[in-house]
Amino acid sequence: GPLPFGRLAIVGVGLIGSSLARAALARGLAGEVALADADPAVVARAAELGIGTSFHADAAEAAAGADLVISCVPVGACGLVAEAIGPVLKPGAIVSDVGSVKAAVVERMLPHLPEKDRFVPAHPVAGTEFSGPDAGFADLFEGRWSILTPPPGTAEEAISTVAAFWEACGANVETMTPAHHDLVLAITSHLPHLIAYNIVGTAADIEEVTQSEVIKFSAGGFRDFTRIAASDPTMWRDIFLNNKLAVLEALGRFSEDLAALQRAIRWGDGDALFNLFTRTRAIRRSIIDVGQDTPSPDFGRRPPGK
Amino acid sequence: GPLPFGRLAIVGVGLIGSSLARAALARGLAGEVALADADPAVVARAAELGIGTSFHADAAEAAAGADLVISCVPVGACGLVAEAIGPVLKPGAIVSDVGSVKAAVVERMLPHLPEKDRFVPAHPVAGTEFSGPDAGFADLFEGRWSILTPPPGTAEEAISTVAAFWEACGANVETMTPAHHDLVLAITSHLPHLIAYNIVGTAADIEEVTQSEVIKFSAGGFRDFTRIAASDPTMWRDIFLNNKLAVLEALGRFSEDLAALQRAIRWGDGDALFNLFTRTRAIRRSIIDVGQDTPSPDFGRRPPGK
Ligand SMILES: NC(=O)c1ccc[n+]([C@@H]2O[C@H](COP(=O)([O-])OP(=O)(O)OC[C@H]3O[C@@H](n4cnc5c(N)ncnc54)[C@H](OP(=O)(O)O)[C@@H]3O)[C@@H](O)[C@H]2O)c1
Ligand SMILES: NC(=O)c1ccc[n+]([C@@H]2O[C@H](COP(=O)([O-])OP(=O)(O)OC[C@H]3O[C@@H](n4cnc5c(N)ncnc54)[C@H](OP(=O)(O)O)[C@@H]3O)[C@@H](O)[C@H]2O)c1
Repeated sequence: GPLPFGRLAIVGVGLIGSSLARAALARGLAGEVALADADPAVVARAAELGIGTSFHADAAEAAAGADLVISCVPVGACGLVAEAIGPVLKPGAIVSDVGSVKAAVVERMLPHLPEKDRFVPAHPVAGTEFSGPDAGFADLFEGRWSILTPPPGTAEEAISTVAAFWEACGANVETMTPAHHDLVLAITSHLPHLIAYNIVGTAADIEEVTQSEVIKFSAGGFRDFTRIAASDPTMWRDIFLNNKLAVLEALGRFSEDLAALQRAIRWGDGDALFNLFTRTRAIRRSIIDVGQDTPSPDFGRRPPGK
Repeated sequence: GPLPFGRLAIVGVGLIGSSLARAALARGLAGEVALADADPAVVARAAELGIGTSFHADAAEAAAGADLVISCVPVGACGLVAEAIGPVLKPGAIVSDVGSVKAAVVERMLPHLPEKDRFVPAHPVAGTEFSGPDAGFADLFEGRWSILTPPPGTAEEAISTVAAFWEACGANVETMTPAHHDLVLAITSHLPHLIAYNIVGTAADIEEVTQSEVIKFSAGGFRDFTRIAASDPTMWRDIFLNNKLAVLEALGRFSEDLAALQRAIRWGDGDALFNLFTRTRAIRRSIIDVGQDTPSPDFGRRPPGK
């Protein structure tokens, strides 16, 4: 089989890159795990944590001789990574990434890669609100989905190798086109983040209610949104700039539905409210049934001090 | 001091009523804890769970002879409860409630109460997405805030007795006017719920993405919203019908801000996005600092099977 790799290179050692490095080491998926990051402090920290076998400031240095190179940088930087590694890739090397947007990643990376049929973009639908090499952990992908979006013409063997890698990390694998990925994630991830950022901003600005009241009484629901709205600003700026059309389309739907809800409240249409509020429960039940969320009340959050 | 009460009566034995009953028993806050509910199955279940000292189908029967009567029914039903208990209240009995809206509760309950200066409305800002007597637990109010909204003219001694009761349940107490409460909670609780219900509805309806994709890839952010959107439909219908103006005002602000964010995406204004996404992080930090949320990544949610 294709696993373990002789050399795996990971460029960008943040939450996702460091989790992949840890998973690869813990599960013996590669003989060498070469890590590169643009931030010297991150390179030093990765070495200190011992989550790879070599540590590089230069992406090309890590990628040289690798069988699989995975770009784990913000979407806006993936073109730079492809440009840096393109010239040093060994023949037959597979290139992949983990960006949260896929059509734009293909557009930015593919032109710089020497073997166009060995590029298998991927997106693991897993994460936390934290960033950097200390935030990662080997089990992050366990039970989650990793979506592969190979452009037409990609070698089947490269696709199945990347699929096997993700499965070995504990993930389920699904394949779809980059464009469809971007539509699906606009709904299940990008719109939720946009709405969360927006509501936290609205609450921060309102004059009738003090900041301290917003914070004290946040357990009524607001605090849930602040977790998502604490996600990395660079990563999320890049996502919205690179999935503009699908996000604007999803946002249009959301606003239309919200206008109808607003009207139901204004006119006191209790039945319309009750019907929507009943319909939405079924979706949570399904998410729990397929193992994508916990059935514990309140996410299993413990009361302070417990 | 005023505690323990001779007899505490709780009308409505759902998540909040049953949690209060458990807290009162566990902490010895009353000699008798009389529980009443309109649903015979709930009365039977409360008796089975042993979370009170007497169990009643009739609110008046529970309230007769009580020193403190707390209405724990949906906001739309609190007028009926006041009407039922008003005639049987013993002289000097204090009446309170736990409704998530306060001006409307005062309007609905006060006319039916014989001693207007002994009504101390309250709202514990604590809960989970579950309902009913099995969902409650004694520690629900631990470290949370309970907001008292006594109308002008309420007896100081009645206010301090209700405050002492909540503190004995582990809560912090704050006092404000009903109108201000409704503004604050419109932002920290009602708007977040409305937005969560709406986004889950939008995701359910979109045609380009299948229901099964929404569910599978929900760990990208969407699943967080489904927890809140699984809250009780009756309770939430009543909240929106009874806090219409404050909710519409908060919603107006939210939509205005969202329009600006939409424009920033459309025009590719990365700086505007980055600035908002940076500002919102500070609010989560404050919420964690004051103990109203957990610092654990992903709310401390465990991967499936862990
Ligand atoms: N976080 C999530 O929940 C999640 C989930 C799924 C997918 N993703 C995707 O995964 C990717 C990484 O996200 P993350 O959360 O792991 O980010 P992160 O923790 O912020 O780490 C990214 C790292 O990449 C480095 N970097 C940036 N440009 C670089 C370059 N040109 N060459 C080498 N290193 C570079 C960054 O250094 P500097 O700080 O110096 O820029 C940083 O150390 C993004 O594309 C994101 O869309 C994230
Ligand atoms: N859940 C929260 O997170 C939360 C937080 C803070 C405050 N609150 C407030 O607390 C109150 C109760 O909420 P909850 O979540 O505890 O509700 P719940 O679990 O749905 O329980 C409410 C109970 O009250 C009963 N009831 C309804 N009308 C009644 C009447 N006229 N006389 C006697 N019993 C009656 C209901 O019976 P039926 O099912 O037969 O109607 C049900 O058993 C609401 O006003 C809500 O706004 C809730």
